[in-house]
Parts: sequence; structure tokens; C-alpha cells
Amino acid sequence: MTLSKPANPAAPAANPLDRLAAALKPDLTAVNAIIIERMQSDIPLIPQLASHLIGAGGKRIRPLLTLASAALFGYSGTRQHKLSACVEFIHTATLLHDDVVDESDQRRGLPSANAIFGNEAAVLVGDFLFSRSFQLMVEDGSLDVLRILSNASAVIAEGEVLQLTTANNLDTTLDQYIKVIASKTAELFAAACETGAVVANRAAGECMTMREYGMCLGIAFQISDDILDYTASAETLGKNLGDDFREGKMTLPVLLALKNATPAEREFWQRTMGDVNQKDGDFEEAVRIFHRHNAIGQSLTMAREYAARGRQLLADLPKNRISEDLAELITFAVEREY
Amino acid sequence: MTLSKPANPAAPAANPLDRLAAALKPDLTAVNAIIIERMQSDIPLIPQLASHLIGAGGKRIRPLLTLASAALFGYSGTRQHKLSACVEFIHTATLLHDDVVDESDQRRGLPSANAIFGNEAAVLVGDFLFSRSFQLMVEDGSLDVLRILSNASAVIAEGEVLQLTTANNLDTTLDQYIKVIASKTAELFAAACETGAVVANRAAGECMTMREYGMCLGIAFQISDDILDYTASAETLGKNLGDDFREGKMTLPVLLALKNATPAEREFWQRTMGDVNQKDGDFEEAVRIFHRHNAIGQSLTMAREYAARGRQLLADLPKNRISEDLAELITFAVEREY
Repeated sequence: MTLSKPANPAAPAANPLDRLAAALKPDLTAVNAIIIERMQSDIPLIPQLASHLIGAGGKRIRPLLTLASAALFGYSGTRQHKLSACVEFIHTATLLHDDVVDESDQRRGLPSANAIFGNEAAVLVGDFLFSRSFQLMVEDGSLDVLRILSNASAVIAEGEVLQLTTANNLDTTLDQYIKVIASKTAELFAAACETGAVVANRAAGECMTMREYGMCLGIAFQISDDILDYTASAETLGKNLGDDFREGKMTLPVLLALKNATPAEREFWQRTMGDVNQKDGDFEEAVRIFHRHNAIGQSLTMAREYAARGRQLLADLPKNRISEDLAELITFAVEREY
Repeated sequence: MTLSKPANPAAPAANPLDRLAAALKPDLTAVNAIIIERMQSDIPLIPQLASHLIGAGGKRIRPLLTLASAALFGYSGTRQHKLSACVEFIHTATLLHDDVVDESDQRRGLPSANAIFGNEAAVLVGDFLFSRSFQLMVEDGSLDVLRILSNASAVIAEGEVLQLTTANNLDTTLDQYIKVIASKTAELFAAACETGAVVANRAAGECMTMREYGMCLGIAFQISDDILDYTASAETLGKNLGDDFREGKMTLPVLLALKNATPAEREFWQRTMGDVNQKDGDFEEAVRIFHRHNAIGQSLTMAREYAARGRQLLADLPKNRISEDLAELITFAVEREY
């Protein structure tokens, strides 16, 4: 009998993302090997910069979705490995460009690539990874996958531009917000899921259901991210708390707080997020206003609706260990605290 | 009898680029229509920014190469139209990212897109055009073309990164310089030419010869560009004279002048291009040093060697009006004064 809790190597992983990673470990190992191999270049700065981000403990959630989707349908080949690497390369490229756009100095708890290597290198290495991703897809040879992922890339860029044009604009609508997060975040989740189903050679309906699940997951995940930017601790978040506030990004809690804002509150939002004229204590005041209007609670409710819809979609797909993990993953995406 | 030279509508166009554009006018019109149509988006900023650059009197040299290559081989379909638009989209995307990297404030004689719309939008609209280009290729459906242009995109990004790492470095070698310009500029010329031959369904050897011609043309074109950055007038150049000097780009004239530099000259280059510590009169001094070492003359000789090799390659391809224009184009690329 011991007083401290014993380590149990057979204990189930703490969260469904880790469980998926454990269940798909040989696949994930193969994907990581491809990622490392294919981010190489004769130009040393490219792997240096790319590995800074790719090696920095990313959760690999997007490639895991492609692997999980292929596994859900019982696919037994290896095409999903290269295509999962494609998905991660596209994601990394958008992160690199995102950090340039946001002038971020932190990413995943480390200094961002642009802060260390400069904006120029971050833009160009992003371009390289993006191109490399398409080279890998061409090697795979499926025009369907090329269509899915080139469409996703265009939609992601559109979402990022839309986010840029709605920033600092208090008239941003809920519809615009959903369009931004569906495009900039959920589209790649959807494409990653769809790709796995296409590789498994499933009928169009099942591919579309898998895609829709990814879309719900991505939206739920991003709403949760936008909540955490106000409620998490900087340590667990791995980026600067309040980044969205400082940049005047019109995320869901702000839009909901604006809905029934008093004239004084509206003035506050206009000064802090519209004119980005912020002073000490403003962030804390923003959080107080959220509580007054239950803006965080309402945001969570909305995220949970997308999660429920995602779980519903899974009901139409094969039932197995992977589908259980995916059902729990979409709950976890909303309920996580980091 | 008139004293002033009469306008003659039947007069041959002044340069081979204009002659090619005239000979391929219906094709070019179709390409322009696709470009305008496919740079549209629900997000108004995207076509606004894209049209600023795409509509700004670009010479369309790269899409013209795809059109010319298809025409040279007597191809009579329309696939080259969409693929020429792809080539121009890739080029525009790299220009947008290039201007962010170079912090340029002028492009084609107008304020650059990043100067008007901001770096963020320039990066993201570049990403959009790049993705859109791959969507168009997928619509065309040729994996060969997808392979050629995804390879080209990766090589271009590598060339840009290499240029970044050789900037301000006086130890840059001639080989590195050629690798930079072959990658960042000539690769897309080569891919544009190869694409036309692939569309015309030619044998691998002819496709490769066409590709090699494009490579020689691109290298000759870029050496000439690098010379003009020191010798042209700002008005005809359409960008700031001396940009390369100010940024410490190690272009061919500088490398040749460095080869036999006196200690005082080497000190000058170290201060101005290595440490980018420049003062009034330095640019003029750089030009004087070039004359002392015949660095411009030697650069021109090298460009002419690539032009000669390009003309030689054309000798192995069908002879017609288009091949004549392409032969003259490579001469023009070197001998132009703007």
C-alpha cells in the first residue's frame, strides 16, 4: 500500500487526443518521419526554421484526423501517411504566415519563428512548405485529394483576409465571425477528415459526413480557443493571454458582449478594440464585462452545439474504437482548459 | 508628304515581346479573362489587392511563354489558357511576398501592394493566389503539369531563402548567385515553357529542351535585371534604381567587382553592402568601381552566353514564326534598356 498514486503504464491516456495518438502510434511515427525527411532542403535555413515550428511540440491534431479517418473506415494501406504530412505542412505554412501577420512573438510557448528568424524567412519558408505539400500530393497522385486540399488552402487564405478586414470593426456580425473561423481553422480540419475517407475509397456521402464532422470539430475547437484567449493561464495556453484583445480581433465573446452593451461598454469596446487604444486594466475590465453578460457562458453553449452536431454525424459512420475517440475528441475540444 | 513620322498600324511591334503578344493576341485575351475571373472572391480586399498588381501593366512574359510554347508545337486546344493564368498567379504571389520581404515601396512604377494595403494583406492575398493557381491546375487535371508547377514553386521559395542568406555576405560565390537566379527567376520561366510543351503532348526530350530554353531565358533576363538596377533610369525601370545596392543584394556586377577588388574597394563593399552603412554618393561610387573593373561588361557577356545557348536549343525545335520570336526574345532580354 502506497500513499502516492503509482504510475501505471497501462492507464488510459488522459485525453482523447493522446488516446488517438496512442492508438495510431505506428501511423504517426511514419508521418513524423515523412515530415522530417521532406522539410529538408539544400538551403540550411529552411529545415532550421521549419523544425523550430514543426518540432515544437505541436499536437499534430490535423494529421491525426487524416490518420483517424482512414482508420475509422478500416483502410489498411499507407497513402494516408504522406497525405497527413501534407496537411501538417499546410498548417505549418499558415502558422508561419499568421505569425508574420499578427506580429506574434510567441507560439506554442516558445518565441515565434518570425521573432527569431525574421519576417522574410518566415514568409518564404511558409511558401516552401506549402509548395512541398503540393509536391507530396502529386506524388500520391490523387486529383481528388489535390482538389480537396487546394480548395482548403484557398478558403483558409480567404478566411485570414476576412479576419483582417473584420479586425477592429465593432459592426462585425456573428455570421462573419463563423465564416472567419470556419475558413481559417475548420476548413483544414474538414479537409483532413475528408482526405482520410477519400484515401479509404468511401462513397461520396460518407466522405462528406466525415468532412462535416471535421468542420464541426474545427469550429468548436476555434470557439474554445477564442474563449481561452480570455480565460486560460498564459502558462497552459502556450501563447500570450489576451493576444486577441490586444489585436482587436472580433471573437465570439466580444460579439456577444457587444450585443447588449450599455453605451459606456460600447465606448469601452470602441476605444480598446476599435481604436486599439488600451491601458493597464483594460483586459481585466473586458473579462468583467463578459461576466456581466454571460458572454463566456453563451460562447461555450455555442461551441457545445457544434460538438453535439459533430457527435451526431459520427453516428452515421462505422462504430469502432476510433469513432469513440473522435466523439470524445470533439467534447474535449470544447471542455479543455488549455 | 509629312514632316512627322506617320503612325503605321501595320508596322511590326517594336520588340519581340510585343510581337509575341500580338501574334498570340486571342490566347492572351482568353488568359486575361481567366485571370480577372479567377482572382475574384467574396472577400472584396482580395480582388482589390490582386488587381492592383495584376492589372498594373505587367508584361505577362511568363504566361506568354506557356502560350508561345504551346503554339510553337502547333497545339490547337485551349488548355494553355488556364495554365498560363496559373503561371501568372504563381508569379504574382511571389511578387507580393517578395515585396514584403524586400520592404519595397515601388513595383512597376506604382506604390507596391504592401505599401498600400499592408504587409499582412499582401502575404495573405499571395497565399490565396497561390492556392487558386493549384485549384486551376486541378481543374485542368494533368498530374504532369501539377508536378512541374509544384516543383517550380518549391524551387522558387528555396531560391528566395538562399538569396536572403547570401544578402550582405561578401563571400557569396558566383555559383551561389547563379543558383539564386536560376531558382527565384528562371525556374518559373522554365516551368512555363515546359508546361506549353506538355500541353501540346510532345515527347519528353522536346519538353526538356523547351524547359532548358526557358531556364536560359530566365537567367539571361535576371542578369540583365541585375545590371539595370545600376544602369537604368528610375523612370524606365519602374522601380527604385539602386534597390539591390541599398539592400546589399549580392548580384553579378558586385561579385565580379569584388573578384579583383583593391583593399580600399573591398572595404567600401563591406561597409556599403556587408554592413549596409551607406551615405550619399555611395551608389555613384559603386558604379565607378564597376567601370574600373568592367563589371557591367563582364556581366553582359555572361548574360549573352546564356542567350546564345537558349537560341541554340531552339534550333532543335520546330521552325516557325513563334520560334523566331522566341529567339529574338532571348536577345532582347539581354539587350533591353528597361
